[in-house]
Amino acid sequence: MSWSKFEYQLQTWLERGLDQRLRLAVTGLSRAGKTAFISALVYQLRHLNAQQQLPLLQVAREGRLLGCKRTHQPDLSIPRFPYDQALAAFYSQPPYWPQPTNGISEICLNLRYRPQTSLKRYLGEVASLQLEIVDYPGEWLLDLPLLEQDFITWSQTSIDYLQHHPQRRALAQTWWQGVEALDVLAPADEHKIAQLAALYTENLHQSKAAGFAWIQPGRFIMPADHAGAPILEFFPLPQLDKYSAEQIHQAAPDSLFALLQQRFEYYKNHLVRPFYKEHFSRFDRQIVLIDLLQALNAGHEKVLDTQMTLTQLLQSFRYGQRDFLRRLFAPRIDRLLFAITKSDHVTRDQDPALCQLLQNLLQDPLQDLRTDAVQLQIQPLASVRATQELILELSDGQKTPALKGHNLQGEVLTFYPGEVPKSLPSPDFWQTQGFEFVHFAPPSLHQEQALAHLRMDEALEFLLGDKLA
Amino acid sequence: MSWSKFEYQLQTWLERGLDQRLRLAVTGLSRAGKTAFISALVYQLRHLNAQQQLPLLQVAREGRLLGCKRTHQPDLSIPRFPYDQALAAFYSQPPYWPQPTNGISEICLNLRYRPQTSLKRYLGEVASLQLEIVDYPGEWLLDLPLLEQDFITWSQTSIDYLQHHPQRRALAQTWWQGVEALDVLAPADEHKIAQLAALYTENLHQSKAAGFAWIQPGRFIMPADHAGAPILEFFPLPQLDKYSAEQIHQAAPDSLFALLQQRFEYYKNHLVRPFYKEHFSRFDRQIVLIDLLQALNAGHEKVLDTQMTLTQLLQSFRYGQRDFLRRLFAPRIDRLLFAITKSDHVTRDQDPALCQLLQNLLQDPLQDLRTDAVQLQIQPLASVRATQELILELSDGQKTPALKGHNLQGEVLTFYPGEVPKSLPSPDFWQTQGFEFVHFAPPSLHQEQALAHLRMDEALEFLLGDKLA
Repeated sequence: MSWSKFEYQLQTWLERGLDQRLRLAVTGLSRAGKTAFISALVYQLRHLNAQQQLPLLQVAREGRLLGCKRTHQPDLSIPRFPYDQALAAFYSQPPYWPQPTNGISEICLNLRYRPQTSLKRYLGEVASLQLEIVDYPGEWLLDLPLLEQDFITWSQTSIDYLQHHPQRRALAQTWWQGVEALDVLAPADEHKIAQLAALYTENLHQSKAAGFAWIQPGRFIMPADHAGAPILEFFPLPQLDKYSAEQIHQAAPDSLFALLQQRFEYYKNHLVRPFYKEHFSRFDRQIVLIDLLQALNAGHEKVLDTQMTLTQLLQSFRYGQRDFLRRLFAPRIDRLLFAITKSDHVTRDQDPALCQLLQNLLQDPLQDLRTDAVQLQIQPLASVRATQELILELSDGQKTPALKGHNLQGEVLTFYPGEVPKSLPSPDFWQTQGFEFVHFAPPSLHQEQALAHLRMDEALEFLLGDKLA
Repeated sequence: MSWSKFEYQLQTWLERGLDQRLRLAVTGLSRAGKTAFISALVYQLRHLNAQQQLPLLQVAREGRLLGCKRTHQPDLSIPRFPYDQALAAFYSQPPYWPQPTNGISEICLNLRYRPQTSLKRYLGEVASLQLEIVDYPGEWLLDLPLLEQDFITWSQTSIDYLQHHPQRRALAQTWWQGVEALDVLAPADEHKIAQLAALYTENLHQSKAAGFAWIQPGRFIMPADHAGAPILEFFPLPQLDKYSAEQIHQAAPDSLFALLQQRFEYYKNHLVRPFYKEHFSRFDRQIVLIDLLQALNAGHEKVLDTQMTLTQLLQSFRYGQRDFLRRLFAPRIDRLLFAITKSDHVTRDQDPALCQLLQNLLQDPLQDLRTDAVQLQIQPLASVRATQELILELSDGQKTPALKGHNLQGEVLTFYPGEVPKSLPSPDFWQTQGFEFVHFAPPSLHQEQALAHLRMDEALEFLLGDKLA
């Protein structure tokens, strides 16, 4: 083999070995702003050189990011992420937040950059990174723990949750009464199951609308092809503890218990497992978006619900202790970003409090996670900055930071939005005072004005920086 | 082995060998009445003994059918056929035709009967047949021929079809102009493809609404999880014949041709093939419902469209000549019923004409099919009889048969609906005269009145009779 041929072979081999492709997964708890985040990410990378808005992204700061173009997605059966529609929404008069996506979607970018590392430079002046951004509902991630639960455990977990969340318990009241009246071991009436499942599903819809994040089983509220199929017609049984383990074990195949158990297993095998096999196991990086301000507004129970939901989500990234995941799917996510969105809805001096509140809520699970292989970052973020910050002088001469922006009714507001608590306040706090963080509309922009952000570059540096070195 | 043990073994083996399970597939061209048919089928079997309405079904006539109950479906991920909702529609005041189903659905019945054959009688006084009825869109069946077409062939077939159907061509005009302006070999713009695919899909929706049956690719109008995905964004290319085979063969991977070809193949492999593998290949019997009167009303082009569509459909059952199917999926459908629905919308003396018209339209493909292993029956059918037949005496003393029923506006009509032509009239006929078969509402019934039908028992005898012997 001649030297030049050897050199060529080496180069081919090195190119393959290098990180030329990255699958970035984006998910979030209900209404946390996934669509705004992905649109802003694509926008900022595509408008980088004109606007110099990403100083904390090293490759950009050093002027090494040369271009970003959209490319064809590899999996043709996944809906395309509606980037153009989202941008149109931001540049409308008046602007509005884009329609939330439903289910999974994808958008692909090709980033050309001048490499810094000697190995990559050896391969050429210009390198490229294929970035595949996958957007999926937080509920699908929340379904992951089902894979290691049997029907009895899941039933108990769900009932425990309802018993600790009085508002959710109240929403579920009609269903609860209906299901408690049934004999778990008697032959089941399919029609009755369908009715109760419809009530349970309705209860999940209402809970989501009321701002709760703990929505499980997640596919119940996004049925797609399975609307009206038995796979989406089961529910937990509150009365299971009235029966002995032996009674349950000997339940007849046509009993209510056996039928629900069969459907629960079917759901795991036909909906949850394929998602993890076909998608989750192929993600390289994950960002989870969380709207803490919305939870604070909604009250003590919603914050507890966020806490529990995030605790559950974190389990999906604990490969060390939970090696059943590794056995099943060999997941490879090595960086996990928790972004507290809409940080422009409070003044910037509140950023540390936002982080601290989340860290306090997740103290135990974070402790466990730190011993694992996953790198974790928690940060505030405003994908599309909706407010301006200014200093107000009060009548007594004191100065205070304030925000200026449009509320959803289009009125201009200038005010101090208040402080974020550093830890979970007691339930009393909401009875006497509570929180009222305003929800802002997107900023009104001319076509040539850029979308602004807060700390998007910090997020990008964490998620992509090492791949663009 | 003792004699009784041997007897037991033999019985088990025989039971397995006997036809204890039958998957009956129901499909139809647009609005042919699938929902009414399945509801009526279940209704008639479940109310058999009270009403004695099935004299042509041998097992019923001989009093050997003992009972029929609904059972759990084996595939939990398929939506349940909405039988209860359909019955509620028929027994409403005023009654209405049930909502059409969308996509696939299933309902299962267990039929208990006294066997007649000595072999089954040896096995017991009472035998049972598990009947699984699967309802799926005619468009899915129409997609089958794609499996043996490549993109170029499909493109030519689709363009030929449009050129022979001026109304369809007119509906597709905007799309056609847009696509003809493109260079097939130039790099494709994904955004442009998406726009043209949206126009093509819109054209399919309009065609279906206008009563055309030839809707292909069928998933375009029922996107389910794939709305907005590239798999549903392709279309035929009218300008292909301007290019040489070599030019096409050498098309670059990012050219319009290559991209559309890739998506076409993806569609076949990810949507068409799974349907045939998971469903079609497991059907035992098939009924195809056709509304010929609606086609006659709509004009010469719609009748031609029905003819072409049925000709294509018939190919799916020609295992003999087309053994690619047998190789791929080993389909096992051995009886195929073409039912000309709404036969109660004409007088009963027109039944032979209905059959003859269909036979004339399908002369060639039927000729081919008769040499194959599939048994075929063509018959008129009214799943839910909406009219009464009576004899009117005209002013000149002559007598004529007539129909009495409610039209969709709720008015009572009594009239002679006219004759069905025995063969396809010439286009002129529609210009001078045409057809105006009235669309009737379901009959108004009290709760204790039975749903009536026409020749449902004949259909059941063909589809199930031998399995209940």
